[in-house]
Amino acid sequence: MRYWCELAWLGGPTATAGVVLDVEGDRIIAVTTTGEVPHAAVRLAGLTIPGLANAHSHAFHRAMRARTQRGTGSFWTWREQMYAAADRLDPDLYLAVARATFAEMALAGITVVGEFHYLHHGPGGVPYDDPNAMGAALIAAAGDAGVRLTLLDTCYLQGGIGVELNPTQRRYSDGDVVGWATRAGALADGAMVRHGAAIHSVRAVDPAATEVVAAWAEARSAVLHAHVSEQPAENEQCRVAYGCTPTELLADRGALGPRFTSVHATHLTDADVARYGASASTCCFCPTTERDLADGIGPAKALVDAGVRISLGSDSNAIIDLFEEARAVELDERLASQVRGSHSAHDLLSMATRHGYDCLGWPDGGRLVAGALADFTTVRLDSVRTVGGGVGHAVATAVFAASAADVRHVFVGGREVVRDGVHLAVDVAAELASSIAAIYGES
Amino acid sequence: MRYWCELAWLGGPTATAGVVLDVEGDRIIAVTTTGEVPHAAVRLAGLTIPGLANAHSHAFHRAMRARTQRGTGSFWTWREQMYAAADRLDPDLYLAVARATFAEMALAGITVVGEFHYLHHGPGGVPYDDPNAMGAALIAAAGDAGVRLTLLDTCYLQGGIGVELNPTQRRYSDGDVVGWATRAGALADGAMVRHGAAIHSVRAVDPAATEVVAAWAEARSAVLHAHVSEQPAENEQCRVAYGCTPTELLADRGALGPRFTSVHATHLTDADVARYGASASTCCFCPTTERDLADGIGPAKALVDAGVRISLGSDSNAIIDLFEEARAVELDERLASQVRGSHSAHDLLSMATRHGYDCLGWPDGGRLVAGALADFTTVRLDSVRTVGGGVGHAVATAVFAASAADVRHVFVGGREVVRDGVHLAVDVAAELASSIAAIYGES
Repeated sequence: MRYWCELAWLGGPTATAGVVLDVEGDRIIAVTTTGEVPHAAVRLAGLTIPGLANAHSHAFHRAMRARTQRGTGSFWTWREQMYAAADRLDPDLYLAVARATFAEMALAGITVVGEFHYLHHGPGGVPYDDPNAMGAALIAAAGDAGVRLTLLDTCYLQGGIGVELNPTQRRYSDGDVVGWATRAGALADGAMVRHGAAIHSVRAVDPAATEVVAAWAEARSAVLHAHVSEQPAENEQCRVAYGCTPTELLADRGALGPRFTSVHATHLTDADVARYGASASTCCFCPTTERDLADGIGPAKALVDAGVRISLGSDSNAIIDLFEEARAVELDERLASQVRGSHSAHDLLSMATRHGYDCLGWPDGGRLVAGALADFTTVRLDSVRTVGGGVGHAVATAVFAASAADVRHVFVGGREVVRDGVHLAVDVAAELASSIAAIYGES
Repeated sequence: MRYWCELAWLGGPTATAGVVLDVEGDRIIAVTTTGEVPHAAVRLAGLTIPGLANAHSHAFHRAMRARTQRGTGSFWTWREQMYAAADRLDPDLYLAVARATFAEMALAGITVVGEFHYLHHGPGGVPYDDPNAMGAALIAAAGDAGVRLTLLDTCYLQGGIGVELNPTQRRYSDGDVVGWATRAGALADGAMVRHGAAIHSVRAVDPAATEVVAAWAEARSAVLHAHVSEQPAENEQCRVAYGCTPTELLADRGALGPRFTSVHATHLTDADVARYGASASTCCFCPTTERDLADGIGPAKALVDAGVRISLGSDSNAIIDLFEEARAVELDERLASQVRGSHSAHDLLSMATRHGYDCLGWPDGGRLVAGALADFTTVRLDSVRTVGGGVGHAVATAVFAASAADVRHVFVGGREVVRDGVHLAVDVAAELASSIAAIYGES
C-alpha cells in the first residue's frame, strides 16, 4: 500500500509536505518526498504523525469518568471510589469496558497502549480457572479495538508499607512475588502484544519483592514500570519505613535503567531527577490525571535537562486526548515557572509518540522511517480548532490546538482502524454506554 | 416555538429529565417538566444548558493560535507577537477574523461574548473616518455569527505607568480619557448588543483617568471590566508607582462594585480578595490563556469563599472551549492545593453561564427560567467523550468530560444558530482560514 501525506511530521521542528509512505505487511518500507500525488496512492489530507503512544492506562477507570466529581476529597478518597468500580469487574465486564475504551483511544489517534494491569483475580483474591483470565481479556480487547498492547503485568502484594491487603486489594495480589512471577510468566508475546512487568508502587511491593520483579524484567529484556511519587504521602511513608525516596529504593533494588519507566514522577528530589538521567530511565507524565487527582506538577524541564525521556499516559481515562496531555506538560510547567517554551512542540510530540513506543518495548514504532511499524495517525488541519496555523505551524497546531476529535485516520500495523473519524470495527459510543451501564447494574 | 429537552440543567446539582421550553420571540416564556414529548415540540437530545457566556475575549488573537509556540519567553515576549498581529488589522480584516472567531464560539455553545476591544484607530493612532469603525466591525461580526455581544470599549492611554505609547499602542489610544468617553459614548445598544466600559489595566490607564471611566460606567449603569494582576510585574510596578495593589487602586477610584469585573485576578493579596467580596464584584478567570501565558493560578476558592462570583473567558482564543475553562478552574486549583472538589460541577457551570451573563450586563440571560432570553445550548451525551456518565452525572459530564466538539445545537434569542454541530450562517473553518491567511498576507 502507498499513502500520500499532504503533510507529515518526520521528527523535526516542522512538518514536511508531500510525503509518501510505502507500507508492506505491518511495516513502513520507504519514506520519500514528492511534489505530486503518486498514482494509486491513498491520499491523507492533514498532518500525518506516528501513531500516538498511551504509555500508562488503567482501562476500566473509563467507567468512572464524570462519576467521581462530587464532594471534596483527595487522591485517597478518589481511590476508594476506584476500588468500588474495580470490585464490580469480572473477565467479561473487564473485556467489554477495555475493548470500548481501547477503541476510544484508537479514535483519539492512539496506536499503542501500555495497560498497567493489577486486577488479576476474582472476589476474595481467588484465582479464576485461567489465572490470567483478566490479562487475556485485555489482550482480546486490544485486538478487537485494533490497537497494539503492552500488558504491564503488575505486582501488588500489600495494602501499604506493612499494611494488610483490604478485600479489594486481595484481587490484585498473587500472594507473594513468586506467585506473581509464575502467573506473569505464563503469557506469550504476539505480533500486536508484548509483555512487561510493573511494580505497583513502593507502597504495594516491598523492597525484596521489588528486586525480584526488576530481575525478572531484566532477565527477559522486558520493560518495567512503576508508579512513583505521585503523592507526597507516599514519599513520607517511604522515608519513614526505609529512610529514602521511592526513586532511591527502586534504584537500590535494580529497577532503574533504559527499560524502566517511572510513572508520574511528580514529587522528586534533585537527586531523584539525577538518578533518572544517569540511568537513562523514562518518566511517564499523565497530566490530565495529575490535575484530576490533585497530584501536583512534576519537574518536566528538570528531567529533560537531566537527559530523561518523558512519555505520556491517559492513566485514569477521565480524558482520552494525547494532544491535551502533550500540551499540558508544557502548560502546567508554565503555571509553575511563569516561563513559556520549556518544551518545544516537536519535543512534546516526541513524548506522545516515539518516547511512548520506546518505553513500552516497541522501539521499532513511533517514528515514520523505513523499517518502522506502520502505525500512523492523521490529524485534521481544517477543523475550526486546527485551521489557521498554516503549513509552517502544523506541528504546533497538532500539539497546542488539536483535540482527540480532530483525528481523521488511524493505521496500526498497516491496517486501517479509523477512517474519517469512525472506528471500522467497534461502535465505540454504544459499547462504552453498554459496558459501563453493566458495571454499575444500570442496564 | 416549543422545545423538549431530554435533559436540562435548571441550575441545581443535577439535571432534570423531560423539560419543555416554550419560546416566544427572543424569550423563554415557560419552563415545565413532562414525561412525554409534547406534540409539535422540537426534540433536543442530550443535555440542554443555558447558553455559555464568554466573558473575556480578544477575537483577533484567534489569528495567533499555534503561531506563538516557538522559542522561550514570557507573557511580555508573547505580547510583542500579539502587537505584530494587531498591527496588520484594518476594519475589514478585523470584521472578517472576528466573524469567523465568533462563529467558532457559537459552535462551542457560546451565546454571548464580551469583547475587550482596544484596537480603535488606524496606523499611527489616526482615527478612521468613522472613529468607531473597528467597534462597528465587531458588532457586525457578532451579528453575522449569531452571538450576543457586549462591546467592552477599552480605555488605553499609556504604554505603562509613566511610559510613552509605542507605535502599535498609539492605535489603542484616544489621546486622553475625554477622547475615550466621547468616542465610546457614540455607540448605541441594540437587541443583540450592549456596551460596557473597560480600563485596560493600571499600566495603561492612570488613576485620574480610571476614575473618569468608572464614573462614566456608573452614570450609564454599564458594566466595567479591567485586566487586573495577571502578572507579578504589574503588581510590582503599581506598588512602586502608587504604593498599593492594582485592586486597591481600582477600588480607591470607584471602579469596584456589582457591575465590575476583574479579569484574571491571578496574583491577589488577601485584602484584594476581601475587597472583591465586599463590593460584590465579579472575577473573570481565563484558565487556558493563563496557562498559555504562564500567568499562574488565581485564588478561585478564596474568591468564592469571600462571596465573589467567578465568570470565564477564552481571552486569547488559543483554545475556544468553555467546558475546558470551567473544569480548569477546579483542576488548576487541585494542582495548587492538592485538594479535590473546591468547586462543584454545577458551580463551575454557573461560572460558564449565569455569572458570565450577569457580568456582561445581560442579567436576563444565562438561566433557563420563564422570562429569560432564549439562549441555550445542547451538549451531546452520546459521544465517545461524554457517554457513560448516566443521567445522574450529566452535569459533571458536561463540565469534566465534554469538549467544544460535543456541542450539538445552539439557540440565541430564540433563533437557531447551530444545528447538529454545523453553523447555519457561516462556513466557519473556511472563514477562519481565509481571514487569518489575509492577516498574514499568506493568501
